[in-house]
Amino acid sequence: MGFVNGVCCVLLFAWLAFQAILVSGNERSTYIVHMDKSLMPEAFASHDIWYSATIDSVKSQNHESSPFLLYTYDHAFHGFSASLSIDELELLKKSPGFVSAYGDKKATVDTTHTYEFLSLNPLTGLWPASDYGKDVIIGVIDTGIWPESESFKDDGMSEIPSRWKGTCEEGQEFNASNCNLKLIGARYFNKGLRASNPNITISMNSARDTEGHGTHTSSTAGGNYVEEASYFGYASGTARGMAPRARLAMYKVLWDEGGFASDILAGMDQAVADGVDIISISLGYDGMPLYEDPIAIGSFGAMEKGVLVSASAGNDGPGLGYLHNGIPWALTVAAGSIDRTLGGSLVLGNGLSLRGWTMFPANAYVEDVPLFYNKTISTCDSIDHLAEVPSSAIIICENKLSSVADMLSFVANSNAVAGIIISDDQSVYEFNDFPYPGIVITPNQGLDVIKYAQTTPKPSASIAFQQTFVGTKPAPAVAAYTSRGPAASNPSILKPDIMAPGTLVLASWIPNAPASSISPNIQLSSNFNAVSGTSMACPHASGLAALLKGAHPEWSPAAIRSAMMTTANPLDNSHQQIRDIGTDFEIATPLAMGAGQVDPNCALNPGLVYDATTDDYINFLCSMNFTMTQIYTITRTNISCSSPSSDLNYPSFISLYNSTLATGGITTVQYYSRTVTNVGDGAATYKAKVSAPKGSVVTVSPDTLVFSKMYEKLSYSIAIAFTGDKNGTVTFGSLTWIDENSKYSVRSPIVISPMVDAW
Amino acid sequence: MGFVNGVCCVLLFAWLAFQAILVSGNERSTYIVHMDKSLMPEAFASHDIWYSATIDSVKSQNHESSPFLLYTYDHAFHGFSASLSIDELELLKKSPGFVSAYGDKKATVDTTHTYEFLSLNPLTGLWPASDYGKDVIIGVIDTGIWPESESFKDDGMSEIPSRWKGTCEEGQEFNASNCNLKLIGARYFNKGLRASNPNITISMNSARDTEGHGTHTSSTAGGNYVEEASYFGYASGTARGMAPRARLAMYKVLWDEGGFASDILAGMDQAVADGVDIISISLGYDGMPLYEDPIAIGSFGAMEKGVLVSASAGNDGPGLGYLHNGIPWALTVAAGSIDRTLGGSLVLGNGLSLRGWTMFPANAYVEDVPLFYNKTISTCDSIDHLAEVPSSAIIICENKLSSVADMLSFVANSNAVAGIIISDDQSVYEFNDFPYPGIVITPNQGLDVIKYAQTTPKPSASIAFQQTFVGTKPAPAVAAYTSRGPAASNPSILKPDIMAPGTLVLASWIPNAPASSISPNIQLSSNFNAVSGTSMACPHASGLAALLKGAHPEWSPAAIRSAMMTTANPLDNSHQQIRDIGTDFEIATPLAMGAGQVDPNCALNPGLVYDATTDDYINFLCSMNFTMTQIYTITRTNISCSSPSSDLNYPSFISLYNSTLATGGITTVQYYSRTVTNVGDGAATYKAKVSAPKGSVVTVSPDTLVFSKMYEKLSYSIAIAFTGDKNGTVTFGSLTWIDENSKYSVRSPIVISPMVDAW
Repeated sequence: MGFVNGVCCVLLFAWLAFQAILVSGNERSTYIVHMDKSLMPEAFASHDIWYSATIDSVKSQNHESSPFLLYTYDHAFHGFSASLSIDELELLKKSPGFVSAYGDKKATVDTTHTYEFLSLNPLTGLWPASDYGKDVIIGVIDTGIWPESESFKDDGMSEIPSRWKGTCEEGQEFNASNCNLKLIGARYFNKGLRASNPNITISMNSARDTEGHGTHTSSTAGGNYVEEASYFGYASGTARGMAPRARLAMYKVLWDEGGFASDILAGMDQAVADGVDIISISLGYDGMPLYEDPIAIGSFGAMEKGVLVSASAGNDGPGLGYLHNGIPWALTVAAGSIDRTLGGSLVLGNGLSLRGWTMFPANAYVEDVPLFYNKTISTCDSIDHLAEVPSSAIIICENKLSSVADMLSFVANSNAVAGIIISDDQSVYEFNDFPYPGIVITPNQGLDVIKYAQTTPKPSASIAFQQTFVGTKPAPAVAAYTSRGPAASNPSILKPDIMAPGTLVLASWIPNAPASSISPNIQLSSNFNAVSGTSMACPHASGLAALLKGAHPEWSPAAIRSAMMTTANPLDNSHQQIRDIGTDFEIATPLAMGAGQVDPNCALNPGLVYDATTDDYINFLCSMNFTMTQIYTITRTNISCSSPSSDLNYPSFISLYNSTLATGGITTVQYYSRTVTNVGDGAATYKAKVSAPKGSVVTVSPDTLVFSKMYEKLSYSIAIAFTGDKNGTVTFGSLTWIDENSKYSVRSPIVISPMVDAW
Repeated sequence: MGFVNGVCCVLLFAWLAFQAILVSGNERSTYIVHMDKSLMPEAFASHDIWYSATIDSVKSQNHESSPFLLYTYDHAFHGFSASLSIDELELLKKSPGFVSAYGDKKATVDTTHTYEFLSLNPLTGLWPASDYGKDVIIGVIDTGIWPESESFKDDGMSEIPSRWKGTCEEGQEFNASNCNLKLIGARYFNKGLRASNPNITISMNSARDTEGHGTHTSSTAGGNYVEEASYFGYASGTARGMAPRARLAMYKVLWDEGGFASDILAGMDQAVADGVDIISISLGYDGMPLYEDPIAIGSFGAMEKGVLVSASAGNDGPGLGYLHNGIPWALTVAAGSIDRTLGGSLVLGNGLSLRGWTMFPANAYVEDVPLFYNKTISTCDSIDHLAEVPSSAIIICENKLSSVADMLSFVANSNAVAGIIISDDQSVYEFNDFPYPGIVITPNQGLDVIKYAQTTPKPSASIAFQQTFVGTKPAPAVAAYTSRGPAASNPSILKPDIMAPGTLVLASWIPNAPASSISPNIQLSSNFNAVSGTSMACPHASGLAALLKGAHPEWSPAAIRSAMMTTANPLDNSHQQIRDIGTDFEIATPLAMGAGQVDPNCALNPGLVYDATTDDYINFLCSMNFTMTQIYTITRTNISCSSPSSDLNYPSFISLYNSTLATGGITTVQYYSRTVTNVGDGAATYKAKVSAPKGSVVTVSPDTLVFSKMYEKLSYSIAIAFTGDKNGTVTFGSLTWIDENSKYSVRSPIVISPMVDAW
């Protein structure tokens, strides 16, 4: 339910309090208990046994039954969950090793849960302030849309804003009646595709989606409420977009037969002409300088008309420098995890219950089944060996050389009814294919399971599927796949800008394509899909930008982006710095997540904004090593380059060094100047707070900004003195302007990075 | 939506009109078109081609696109469904062979659709008259209950009637808190079981259901509303019991370890003591005379206290004489089909669309897949042959010697992604297991499919799953499995009494048992199950009896039964006599369905009732060939047998003959006397209308009954003169008393049947 973000989070506490759980002393509830494992008495063979003994010792005399263990945890933290009464909890607090305990949260209605994870709520903040995006139009540039998806029904929608000039273009299996008060426009663009393939037959010549991607992104940004949505039973609940009352217009530019820059540009152009407020574009071009990149070009035109383009950073992480859409006048969105785990439970015959990962796409019934373990067979890489598994058994698989998918495939070809796959590969949790009943557990959990299987006469186990757990910690974490800066097309602006949820996002899907499978030959379709990528993060940011546009119609694209960046949260829900799955949970750098996790309610009232006009971007372009023709390609108006300036008024800072030339001890100083606009209530005094990257010296001048009124602009300069190294070390810190009432906190990330090969 | 039942159906028309569909002239809608196949011009090779040509010929110039065929039908009737505009429909009506057309009905919200099939509706009739059963308590004698099922939540329920004396007995995994305003009581009875197995360990020693049966029957009778219920996507919509506001009390008497008469008797006894109004019991004893049958004994006690026992006829059809629960003082319920088909659609690459049967328990994606046909391989009974099927193909299977299940199992072990199974076995449609993607079509449909596969260069097909079609005709039809009379324990009373929906009934199920499977090893569970049996028909009747008790609290069990029987409908939704699936769609006899399909709204106002008191049943028992001890076993009070009478005042008539002794030409005459009570508004005159069984003469005296006031009783006698034959022919007819205003129609079936071996 949200995490602490310095001073902005006053808003949140009311909502948290609203959800407080009342428990009387005598009823049992579930608590998640953190323990200090170093205090475990030596008498206990394992932490599981210690935890069990601890729980047994607190049994209340008010109860006939005993309190009982639900799960033990040994990965994200040490501890367990248990069903306890309040008096038992009080006893527990006096037990050796107790650290903390908090009540479990119900997961039943937590679907398309990202709105909750981002603390959007009907009581305070951005949703009510923007009327849920009611007057805002989001243009989505994508693979088309499935207009019959429930996410695009228009129940509860008011009349279309009169300024809308778009249309519902008819085409193959797409009529004008497919649009409504929610999906207010749909067009398709394939002249470029046809031009380069004159004899092509386009399989679906309309705005209808044949891939699923555009339907997913559209519903994530602005989908209506859909009850009982789920991905084959996972993440079930009521789905909704970030801006559930915003309007959607689809511009189909990607085709089964390919996607051409000319068509993408045409789509973006038309979206602006039609009157969209935000463009969401979950695709990008690799290896292209800005003046060749159709999204850079299209988004410049959009920016000129006041339309913010929100674009995905790409899925080429975790190596540095492969980010796309590093466009100075666009918002570049990285992807992070959600505090939700889709999975299942493994319960052994001895009562030990373990949470694991599974996305088997049905409610498989695996209950009190014999458990089979044999060290040779457990490599699960030989059909001959697996033939020895008795029918109606669960087999334990463990093989560091085989992937989870490969082991599961072998299990599917055996007599086993399910597999327990022991693996430490965290990256599998980002995918959604799980074609046979089974559950993936960690090597630590596996020790207990194997020990039980080896030491019990008739071992058995049960597996429960289609489970959804919320409150996963730490979250968010940067997704391994999200592309990292520096932006090869424009390294001098720190990219990405922000991070939004991107992993296993539940949103609408097309029904006429497989969304999952059951081994070996059964494919399944679904109206909802849980998929991962910056393509899923981008429409989250787009929807939130739409809400901000609804709350602040006067804000420029740069102001909206600035508000999202300077209020983004660098901390996760454990109140620690956000970590990076791509670097084995090292602390994430701004090259992975920009300013941090987007925080929509804080972005509503950012205090100060770093604004930028078309002229600012032109002056910035003039400072780049581009020809006038190349600049013209972007600006599409002749400009004079009378005031070139590399000092774009951006709410973040990147200092680059050449690691191959770096020699220890030689200090470089880079200077930046910035201008901030006071969008707070009136007079305000801000003081700079610097957290300098390791080994650097950061100087801000002046370090106090005294605003006498709203909308006043004040400037400051910042000098970053640093030394690079031959290892290409990335260091990072921040500059935060905090007002004297601690109401506003305006934070800009600072990163010192090795240079990458520019596109 | 209901069918015409003589004079009673005035009630229905308002509701039908309420559902009328408005269609403007230019939009296309789906119509189901009946055609006279005998008028097909010879130029057409098949009816499919004729239908297609017919549709092509009516294309309206107001449309760019052509009208198109959805399905052709050649089994239940001849014709097709097609998407047509009103002007196209008008043209079609002038085409050769046109018979009739009616608009398709949307199936989306038609779940636990039986309430609609039985014409229950919120506007008129039994639901509003009884306040949905609000003050009535249904005791269910069964395998226990899953109290957490959504069907048993108590949203919208008022306070429990104060007369309730039951309790929520605690036990294994069952607390007092598992009861609520809907599930008001739960008890369990296993002393008999324990007594006969002193060392037994009972696996679930409480009222908790471990089988699913009791949860299903309870929710069918009185389940609350559950949105988004379905059986793996089939029959999806809002579920509800027949009496959605009635109270439920579970008496668990059947155990995984067995069921004992003593426990069943104890359960029934306790239910009466607790104050239930209706007992629903979906189980029975074969091969027992009444005085040994615990249900006969238990229901006598219930009847004495004014509690109607509604019991299932058994699933030993279609042979005559295997019916159980043929108890004179209980309601014996047969099972019929529903006008709903669960299945899928097969669409060939040439556009031909066929409706078929499938219950594959997932939304399999089988779209534009190559179609494979080879006469040798298509026997689908050889793994070696099937190895030749290319992967990602649909195979066509046809083998009159193999069952559908066997063929599907071979397909599952091949590379095929799905199977098209050609079969004329109608009985498979009553079951719910379908472990691999596929569809069953009729031999007639198969001709078109094979021809297409053989004559097309690259044949392909798509299969859509999880489809629900309503409006199936003819329906109801008597289920093949439903047990037939005469009642071996009491042949002189015609049994069963009535028919209610029993085939593929959707209701709640226990989550911890498999409800379906996917080949070869994957089992699935579900909170709802679609199952078939008289066990499912019985709680329909029980729920309806509860509604009648709510509307007429003063009615005796015999009066409720009489109202249900004399208003039951002998016609199906094609306005023809109900047919019997068990006899290849011959016209059903009263030995299969009793008086006919229960018609709850008509039963609310039956006009006349055939009442019976405890003394009437005792006099009847005294006329049977029982010892006083045997009679005492049933009555449990000493009686004198001062007025034995075989003339029980029953609303039906059965004449029996010994077919082995029958000699043509010798006529037997059997005499019956009856007394009817006027429960209409006041004075009324009824006239007898007789439809005599073939070859018989039926005389009613007097043939006019003149009632001067409400509750007046009048008697009549009836003589049935008939000849039996050595073939054991069953003939049947009816006696109907119709009032002079044609408001009431009080119908009693008459059957002439060969005698069966009595229990």
